[in-house]
Amino acid sequence: MDDIFDLSPTAAVKRVSALLDCSPTSEKVADYFDKHDKLRHLRENFLVPKIADLPPTDLSLVDGSQECIYLCGNSLGLQPKNARKYLEEELDNWAKIAIHGHTVGSRPWAWAENNLEDFMANIVGAKSGEVALMNGLTVNLHLLMLSFYKPTPTRYKILLESKAFPSDHYAIESQIRLRGFPPESSMLMLSPRPGEDTLRTEDILDVIKKEGDVIAMVMLPGVQYYTGQLFDMHAITKAGHKKGCFVGFDCAHAVGNADLKLHEWDVDFACWCSYKYLNSGAGGLAGAFIHEKHKDTIKPALLGWWGHDLATRFRMTNVMELQPGVSGFRLSNQPILLVCPLQASLELFNMASMQSLRRKSVLLTGYLEYLMKEFYTEDPAQPHKAYVRILTPSDPQQRGCQLSLSFSIPIRRVFQELEKRGVACDMREPSVLRVAPVPLYNSFRDVHRFIETLGKALAASSSG
Amino acid sequence: MDDIFDLSPTAAVKRVSALLDCSPTSEKVADYFDKHDKLRHLRENFLVPKIADLPPTDLSLVDGSQECIYLCGNSLGLQPKNARKYLEEELDNWAKIAIHGHTVGSRPWAWAENNLEDFMANIVGAKSGEVALMNGLTVNLHLLMLSFYKPTPTRYKILLESKAFPSDHYAIESQIRLRGFPPESSMLMLSPRPGEDTLRTEDILDVIKKEGDVIAMVMLPGVQYYTGQLFDMHAITKAGHKKGCFVGFDCAHAVGNADLKLHEWDVDFACWCSYKYLNSGAGGLAGAFIHEKHKDTIKPALLGWWGHDLATRFRMTNVMELQPGVSGFRLSNQPILLVCPLQASLELFNMASMQSLRRKSVLLTGYLEYLMKEFYTEDPAQPHKAYVRILTPSDPQQRGCQLSLSFSIPIRRVFQELEKRGVACDMREPSVLRVAPVPLYNSFRDVHRFIETLGKALAASSSG
Ligand SMILES: Cc1ncc(COP(=O)(O)O)c(C=O)c1O
Ligand SMILES: Cc1ncc(COP(=O)(O)O)c(C=O)c1O
Repeated sequence: MDDIFDLSPTAAVKRVSALLDCSPTSEKVADYFDKHDKLRHLRENFLVPKIADLPPTDLSLVDGSQECIYLCGNSLGLQPKNARKYLEEELDNWAKIAIHGHTVGSRPWAWAENNLEDFMANIVGAKSGEVALMNGLTVNLHLLMLSFYKPTPTRYKILLESKAFPSDHYAIESQIRLRGFPPESSMLMLSPRPGEDTLRTEDILDVIKKEGDVIAMVMLPGVQYYTGQLFDMHAITKAGHKKGCFVGFDCAHAVGNADLKLHEWDVDFACWCSYKYLNSGAGGLAGAFIHEKHKDTIKPALLGWWGHDLATRFRMTNVMELQPGVSGFRLSNQPILLVCPLQASLELFNMASMQSLRRKSVLLTGYLEYLMKEFYTEDPAQPHKAYVRILTPSDPQQRGCQLSLSFSIPIRRVFQELEKRGVACDMREPSVLRVAPVPLYNSFRDVHRFIETLGKALAASSSG
Repeated sequence: MDDIFDLSPTAAVKRVSALLDCSPTSEKVADYFDKHDKLRHLRENFLVPKIADLPPTDLSLVDGSQECIYLCGNSLGLQPKNARKYLEEELDNWAKIAIHGHTVGSRPWAWAENNLEDFMANIVGAKSGEVALMNGLTVNLHLLMLSFYKPTPTRYKILLESKAFPSDHYAIESQIRLRGFPPESSMLMLSPRPGEDTLRTEDILDVIKKEGDVIAMVMLPGVQYYTGQLFDMHAITKAGHKKGCFVGFDCAHAVGNADLKLHEWDVDFACWCSYKYLNSGAGGLAGAFIHEKHKDTIKPALLGWWGHDLATRFRMTNVMELQPGVSGFRLSNQPILLVCPLQASLELFNMASMQSLRRKSVLLTGYLEYLMKEFYTEDPAQPHKAYVRILTPSDPQQRGCQLSLSFSIPIRRVFQELEKRGVACDMREPSVLRVAPVPLYNSFRDVHRFIETLGKALAASSSG
């Protein structure tokens, strides 16, 4: 009966509660899901913090020996167990063979990141050679925009969201300024309709259709960091191309979360960080994608020796033999210490597939949504009871694993009470919690425990 | 009698050999120097590879249990012992408190690199606030040049060396192209006089004086990677400023090697990597300097959220509050895993001082030069004997710790024989060895062992 993972979340909950003869909100349902989750074993490859170790924990309220309820993989992914092993191998290499580590060993430092790029390409739906691992995300955003944003007096705008992630906003603004255009009139910003929380695909496509002739570049997120909305990258790319725009995506919150098909969707370029769903540790090695169709035509604006053909790079001739495509955008040699944890994580993705992770994710997040609605829908009969509006689209096609929960009450105290009880999630004042059950390591039980703990936290924060 | 460190190397060798009643080339002299070296204990803080562990070693020729003769700190510094400890602390934090590591612990990830920047400033002779740790070197070179290279039709050239490090050459070339100028006529390249190996300061100053009006930017290395020449940054900066040029230095081979005074010398900007003399591991966090006089006038061309004032950075308002000076050039959050080894290394520099390291360095490299000359000066009486010309200036003011040795014979086989015997140094075909005794961890004995081993290697390579 393992096809419950193919039912809608509500249908799955109902089916299991009927089968077990229990309430749909019973933890037995969560346990049943976990038991039938074929990806459940992946969690064992991660280090899940114990409640007692989390700084805000109040041990008078909770059993500290339990694993915490970690629901912020959208911000910082958990540590893959092999991260330490691989790091120690390279520390050993450095200690034992030092300079020879550049070319010797299982991860020769001079090209170690290249060995991960096919794994990485798989995860974003790219072909071999379309992906480079390098730098940080904002750095890559700039390197790519320097080549893809080529404004002319008649086509100079960048289409972005009005509430873009700050770094993207600043990056776009400064690129426009660098090109000598005025940001005020060159940043075309999308806002949700009044009273709505997320952008409608039809509205995005409409703006592109109407304004596309003056848009040089569409630069949107794959998944919006605040609302969790997953954009229809395929449709947006098609619409942009129809009007002659380049289309790029910041996939920081989409990579390892949504099932991306960057190549198939014909996306021009994309970039992402690896410390969220890719679990590479704070500040990990970022990624960049350029569609292979551009490989001989779109050249990097800024050059460095790491963009030079590896075979002849160290001959030091000062005659550039530029690698094609995104590989030519490399500037500096990459840190082996960042390759190690990323390798540990990508190997785990490789044990599953984005398709299977996504299948679990739809049920896992749907289950969270189901329980939130069960307990926290506005109830006119109980006007003083806190309720929750979910900012994230309810259509699974329009979201990844994260739900952004907007509470009817200020959230700070509730958040504190959650933290005291071993929940790690993200708060945005005044009233939003972002909660992201990650299919790679979160369980259905985690979701159920979160709902239970939320009840306690609400009670504690309203008393006293 | 510890003032031998203040004598010229030749005088010091003579004094000690007279005192010990031994030949100036005896290893006793080296041991005497080591015994009186007040920085000698610093070596104990590094992991020096054993000969047996180096891949090219031939154990039939050498005692593998000995420490290797590591003379390539100019390429990759040795591992400070605390690197692993600090890395493990942060892996523990990631495992135990995950997301909370951003703000909790002894190295909160969100600003961990900032805690090292005063140490770093000390090493390059900068003031607090003039230094940022971020990205890789070539990335920083670009970020800085985007602000300092502002060509106009009458002032558009960049002064560089004809044999610049490839990444610098490509970076400069691409910056010129990005600004719409032709590289061929905009790259003003300095070459040594015919028959000479290094640039004369007078010639550099002369070119600046003559051509300065069309030079927008002077971009030279602090220490030249190939010849080991240390440039007179003070004089060059003064000359450049006199003609209205910005003056920047790539200090990759100068940082942690020469006693830099970037602030005092009025250098406009500089950048460097940290994996050479700063021992941070392959691809470690790079550094950037902008003189504080520019802090409110020179703005970054490319912006990111890490350039935003830390106090309000995470409010996510999309209204930039730019940090002054080099701090505003930050783009991406920095990797904690790279902060750890750099911290371990900078703490060791902090236990010494660049002045005291430099004092040792002058004797250490002078001792190498003395022995090389003793054994490998061209001898008309022995026309078949290999001899060595030292490309690096003999004036200690014009070099750091590295000597570039040009052999009268092809060097490949000799280099192989050196490697078989536990020497790690750098070869450039056809005939150059770069040898860098690093005052932080190399001993006088290392230098003596190198000379001894070179004798064996030459013998072995010429026989059979
Ligand atoms: C003088 C100089 N410039 C640039 C670089 C390139 O450094 P990165 O790969 O860190 O950008 C190096 C590296 O050895 C160098 O020595
Ligand atoms: C959407 C988005 N863009 C940009 C960034 C900035 O990333 P970095 O600091 O790695 O440049 C983030 C980081 O969370 C992000 O979520």
